[in-house]
Amino acid sequence: MTLSGLSQGIGERIIPLSFGHPDPEMLPTRELREATLRVLDGPRAGLALQYGAEQGTQSLIEVLVEKVRREHGLELTAAQLMIVAGSTHAVDMLARLYARPGGVVLVEMPTYMDTLHVLRDQQLELCSVPMDEDGLLPAALEEQIEQLYARGTFPSLLYSIPTFHNPTGRTLSQTRRLEVIELARRYNFWIVEDDVYRDLAFVETVPPSFAALTGGERVLSIGSFSKTLAPGLRLGWLVAPAQEIQRCMACGTTQMSGGANPLVAHMVAEYCKSGAWEPHIHLLRSRYQMRRDVALAALTSFMPAEITWTHPQGGFFIWLSLPEYIQAQEIRQLALQRGVALTAGEGFFVEAARGAHHLRLTYSCATPQEIETGLRILAQLLRELLH
Amino acid sequence: MTLSGLSQGIGERIIPLSFGHPDPEMLPTRELREATLRVLDGPRAGLALQYGAEQGTQSLIEVLVEKVRREHGLELTAAQLMIVAGSTHAVDMLARLYARPGGVVLVEMPTYMDTLHVLRDQQLELCSVPMDEDGLLPAALEEQIEQLYARGTFPSLLYSIPTFHNPTGRTLSQTRRLEVIELARRYNFWIVEDDVYRDLAFVETVPPSFAALTGGERVLSIGSFSKTLAPGLRLGWLVAPAQEIQRCMACGTTQMSGGANPLVAHMVAEYCKSGAWEPHIHLLRSRYQMRRDVALAALTSFMPAEITWTHPQGGFFIWLSLPEYIQAQEIRQLALQRGVALTAGEGFFVEAARGAHHLRLTYSCATPQEIETGLRILAQLLRELLH
Repeated sequence: MTLSGLSQGIGERIIPLSFGHPDPEMLPTRELREATLRVLDGPRAGLALQYGAEQGTQSLIEVLVEKVRREHGLELTAAQLMIVAGSTHAVDMLARLYARPGGVVLVEMPTYMDTLHVLRDQQLELCSVPMDEDGLLPAALEEQIEQLYARGTFPSLLYSIPTFHNPTGRTLSQTRRLEVIELARRYNFWIVEDDVYRDLAFVETVPPSFAALTGGERVLSIGSFSKTLAPGLRLGWLVAPAQEIQRCMACGTTQMSGGANPLVAHMVAEYCKSGAWEPHIHLLRSRYQMRRDVALAALTSFMPAEITWTHPQGGFFIWLSLPEYIQAQEIRQLALQRGVALTAGEGFFVEAARGAHHLRLTYSCATPQEIETGLRILAQLLRELLH
Repeated sequence: MTLSGLSQGIGERIIPLSFGHPDPEMLPTRELREATLRVLDGPRAGLALQYGAEQGTQSLIEVLVEKVRREHGLELTAAQLMIVAGSTHAVDMLARLYARPGGVVLVEMPTYMDTLHVLRDQQLELCSVPMDEDGLLPAALEEQIEQLYARGTFPSLLYSIPTFHNPTGRTLSQTRRLEVIELARRYNFWIVEDDVYRDLAFVETVPPSFAALTGGERVLSIGSFSKTLAPGLRLGWLVAPAQEIQRCMACGTTQMSGGANPLVAHMVAEYCKSGAWEPHIHLLRSRYQMRRDVALAALTSFMPAEITWTHPQGGFFIWLSLPEYIQAQEIRQLALQRGVALTAGEGFFVEAARGAHHLRLTYSCATPQEIETGLRILAQLLRELLH
């Protein structure tokens, strides 16, 4: 999440294909300004500036319950949703409450690097589950769990990014989602569904969320305003069975701080109630889809045959696989010297070495022209190193 | 931190002597509105809405460095201060980074109940240090540490609220602060200084902070905007040696979320730079001092001789001690039936039973009239139960 590489060029800026930041041009500043005035000039200004109820700002909970009902087809009540201070807060809190230090958490291989960091900070053991083009492999998941059971260890959580996965851009198929749910029931673990890219779909149909497929049972599902509104708000939500929401409300950090970011939550509730969010999401989808198209076309045009990549149907990321004699870290450094920032694969794996021949590209915050230029430079670089 | 009891009365509201919430009447809504417009209409709107640098918003860091230099007489640089999402974030992060699960944290007896909760959630063992009117007892602290050493346990942190302590309102004397620092050096532990009430002094001179007394060494000192500006902002700061700030910036949750609450931090920086914060703090001091005076006068007038209480020189809290045959929980319930919300002492102790004959009163969010009425009702209730 460091900002270096985003704008450090002197004269010309470094082309930012590294971090999954939303395009700064697409932040709805004016509408958020109007929403803020409605909060601070209105009767709830005092409430917005005071400690909030543990579950979060009621008006925002209502907006989100309505959204999840409509879009997930999930019949949830307000008791099944909680406001969180971004997905970081949710991941951290769920790991704390549902896994014990020294316990095991199952993760996809690869997975979001900062989640690995948070889980490691909590002294959790991490166990990776391989994936292919259709997402994590349920048979491999079962095999991992059986191995853990054989040594007397019972994993309590599976952390999954099923839709437009970070770093690969892949989406877990519906069939596999159902198989994973079946395993969660059989082996008694919770599915932590990090679904923060779901709203940024470039296709009509996306597989139902884990939460929708189980009716909410066995799933702790995380949403975020960071990708579809603005990361600087630090705001998201958690959908879970009512009893689990109660457990999260009773967590020490929730008790100490009150509800998540009350002022900002009131602002965002006003923004959403104005009806501005959905058209904004539609705009983002078409804008990011266009950039994804530019990126895939550039890869097809420029890349040597030895390089392969994923074809995301939404979200921010493309995952490149290099021949085994090429080191991603070396490419990353050389690309940076030529003005292109990329992320090497190591950080996304529990065993870093597995990522040594992968690169993550993001098309979220570079212009189409920059994406094309950046990928041409990368392709040229790779060609120079190919045998 | 629950809001129940704050305004649940039908017709007449429950008198809120329970939670340490700032007076809603004293939230500087208008000035924060102006500051928000300066951010969202200005050239840094995009920056405020984007992920922020891990250390926090630079303009706010500058404001706070200047404040700490001026008020603490501590020659710190910008590298020694970090923005946090309220003191909750800081306490949680420091416990995570500086104590290991199963490790021991030293706390005052009594101490802030929500901190106990956060530390317990992190699987830390808690060891209490007795206090008297001048704050924690260094000799007792040393004795506790020696006992821990004797069983091969080395506490890594002392969590202290040295100034206008929660729940007692007491202030640790300068002599004792120096003795505690000497122990921290000898026994190699960090002092986590929760100094969120410091700005609300009713006297000219307050003992220097632990951070000021050591020049920053061995101290992780927490400040907050919750008591002097607005809790709904979720914003505070951490002063620590530069190397420890680096360690906090490398924490998983910091890496995942970026800097603490960027939008709100930009707003508050604008607010502070307008020069509005200091006069606002002066206003708060005189207002809270007046209420403290009303509370102490009412206690003197109404309370039976068997009841004793503390005399805070700042902050929000008064601590009542009852005869041993009177149960604070019973008083709390009876008082609530008569329309007065109080907090019983148990939650503030590692061993809850030690708080069974104590009550915490806050004068921060009730009107002077309510404070007087509430304490008259409480005194009457106690008189009925006295032998």
